[in-house]
Amino acid sequence: MKKFEIAVIPGDGIGREVVPAALKVLDTLCEVHGGLRFETTQFDWSCEYYLEHGEMMPEEGLQTLANFNAIFLGAVGNPKLVPDHISLWGLLVKIRREFEQVINIRPAKLIKGVKSPLANPKDFDLIVVRENSEGEYSEIGGRIHRGEDEITVQNAIFTRKGTERAMRYAFELAKKRRGRVTSATKSNGIFHSMPFWDEVFNDVKKDYPTIETESIHIDALAAFFVNRPHMFDVIVASNLFGDILTDLGAAIMGSIGIAPAANININGKYPSMFEPVHGSAPDIVGKGIANPIGQIWTAKMMLDHFGENELGTKLLDIVEQVTEAGIVTPDIGGTATTNEVTEEICKRIKQ
Amino acid sequence: MKKFEIAVIPGDGIGREVVPAALKVLDTLCEVHGGLRFETTQFDWSCEYYLEHGEMMPEEGLQTLANFNAIFLGAVGNPKLVPDHISLWGLLVKIRREFEQVINIRPAKLIKGVKSPLANPKDFDLIVVRENSEGEYSEIGGRIHRGEDEITVQNAIFTRKGTERAMRYAFELAKKRRGRVTSATKSNGIFHSMPFWDEVFNDVKKDYPTIETESIHIDALAAFFVNRPHMFDVIVASNLFGDILTDLGAAIMGSIGIAPAANININGKYPSMFEPVHGSAPDIVGKGIANPIGQIWTAKMMLDHFGENELGTKLLDIVEQVTEAGIVTPDIGGTATTNEVTEEICKRIKQ
Ligand SMILES: CC(C)[C@H](C(=O)O)[C@@H](O)C(=O)O
Ligand SMILES: CC(C)[C@H](C(=O)O)[C@@H](O)C(=O)O
Repeated sequence: MKKFEIAVIPGDGIGREVVPAALKVLDTLCEVHGGLRFETTQFDWSCEYYLEHGEMMPEEGLQTLANFNAIFLGAVGNPKLVPDHISLWGLLVKIRREFEQVINIRPAKLIKGVKSPLANPKDFDLIVVRENSEGEYSEIGGRIHRGEDEITVQNAIFTRKGTERAMRYAFELAKKRRGRVTSATKSNGIFHSMPFWDEVFNDVKKDYPTIETESIHIDALAAFFVNRPHMFDVIVASNLFGDILTDLGAAIMGSIGIAPAANININGKYPSMFEPVHGSAPDIVGKGIANPIGQIWTAKMMLDHFGENELGTKLLDIVEQVTEAGIVTPDIGGTATTNEVTEEICKRIKQ
Repeated sequence: MKKFEIAVIPGDGIGREVVPAALKVLDTLCEVHGGLRFETTQFDWSCEYYLEHGEMMPEEGLQTLANFNAIFLGAVGNPKLVPDHISLWGLLVKIRREFEQVINIRPAKLIKGVKSPLANPKDFDLIVVRENSEGEYSEIGGRIHRGEDEITVQNAIFTRKGTERAMRYAFELAKKRRGRVTSATKSNGIFHSMPFWDEVFNDVKKDYPTIETESIHIDALAAFFVNRPHMFDVIVASNLFGDILTDLGAAIMGSIGIAPAANININGKYPSMFEPVHGSAPDIVGKGIANPIGQIWTAKMMLDHFGENELGTKLLDIVEQVTEAGIVTPDIGGTATTNEVTEEICKRIKQ
């Protein structure tokens, strides 16, 4: 019996609705297949927790999490209660950073039964490898002067180590896929960091002579996500560009509610974290209509991470059967509730 | 007789094909309507010029341009000849900066007869006001260490003056349109500059109580360009975010080949510059199939800028007649050449 200990952080908003749904699916999968168990421990760290304790997680929170095999997170943030940059940097970004989850991977592909907003999408299946630890998301900077003359400086920091690491990850992934890596750049406009990014890309690609490569400026690349997403296999992008591209990826799939993600600790020192692309969606909280598929697909990425690829593939197949059958939440054109979608998936797992 | 002196810089690649086309259209328009004349002077500043002279424009280039009423530019850049950040910062970005063209405006709307790649686009008509002088496009930064330990720092600089100026421009524009301003932010991820951006936005909006406002993170906003572009009226964005959004805007219109832009000097000290969103497109140079509509629509923005709104509106109407009639270049599904589209537009102006 393989056993994995999972720290579960439902977080805010619909995180608390879709995380239980995904855990139920995981449990059902384990029950049916035997030989595998997830032991979960729940943590209520969230904006409400912040209002009570003045911090998003307890001081020893990271230490606690360090003992788990993985972290399964819903969504963080509720700007009505806590400013985003406090809630997110106090929990989500903090874990990504402190646990050296330097890579964020996010697939986007056409899912059967889910209508893309694109008129005639060819069958696309891409994956964005996002640098997850540095770049434009930096605490370095500040303000000088006040009033009319105020100036804010924001530093973006790109290290060769961090940049190269993300790129190598992308190339290794491409080797197992269709053998193509696209680099998201903006070296025509951003003066220092992006020419550096290009330079590292050109260095790294020499080690992968069989992989096809190209560099595309982020503005054109965003447009290509609309015009020809089927052209892409693996895309490597900085923290910010990866963020933008993956929301676009979710959009062309048909809903941000179905898009999964994994924050990977590649040196094995700390747990990796699995959290869907969507946020806490305060507008639909409590209505029972949150799409659980993003969180469930995220669970599939956790299965893959633990080497359980067969189960992972099976899970995504079943999800596609259910979407194809039209048992889907309103965001993708259905009338089903979070529960109904979840139950249907569980039912088919048991069949 | 009103007379405007225009500095014309065709630049690189298809810039040299679409600029003559747009000038021909402008001439025809003036001929037919009388009372208005554009006197043009051509400058061959380009990547080829760089190869010959070691700079993108002569030392006194800016001084020369300063005497004109406006600059009409095609496209700059040919990475096979000159690295982009040299060619662009040596000409395009240099003019934007030195001539204090602090605002870049770029409309995106459904054009009759041009098929959007979106499945069911509602009738959208938005305009992005892009801060054009500072932000993420900054020469400040550099590298430390070499080899494995190399680190690159890129500074983004946001001044209250620059930020506020762009926002006020957006609010004033919204007053003349549908009364709605959306701010593109990323204050949940970018630690200093974007919370500052939000703060300035919240200050400025107090002066415009009748304008509806919202702030949306750039990742979600990019997704909304795909899902519901009709929700937007005026969007105000930083230099980088504006760059990305306007290429997306061009994409959802159906082709980057039709998207226009204006770089506005708002204090009247220097000429403004009119250049379409598309680049020099080396891949289609010489084939005679470059879409002239982006450059022609850009000429319309120049007419508007000179207060010739009636002529501007007439020109865009005629362009839409021609696209509706299907006389369009291959990028938007037709078989017409640059010349044929141009001739058809001229013919209809004369009718
Ligand atoms: C070429 C490049 C510097 C430029 C920019 O990013 O500003 C272009 O993409 C644009 O949008 O005009
Ligand atoms: C919430 C925010 C900090 C986060 C990010 O930008 O990384 C989110 O958009 C994401 O993509 O996970």
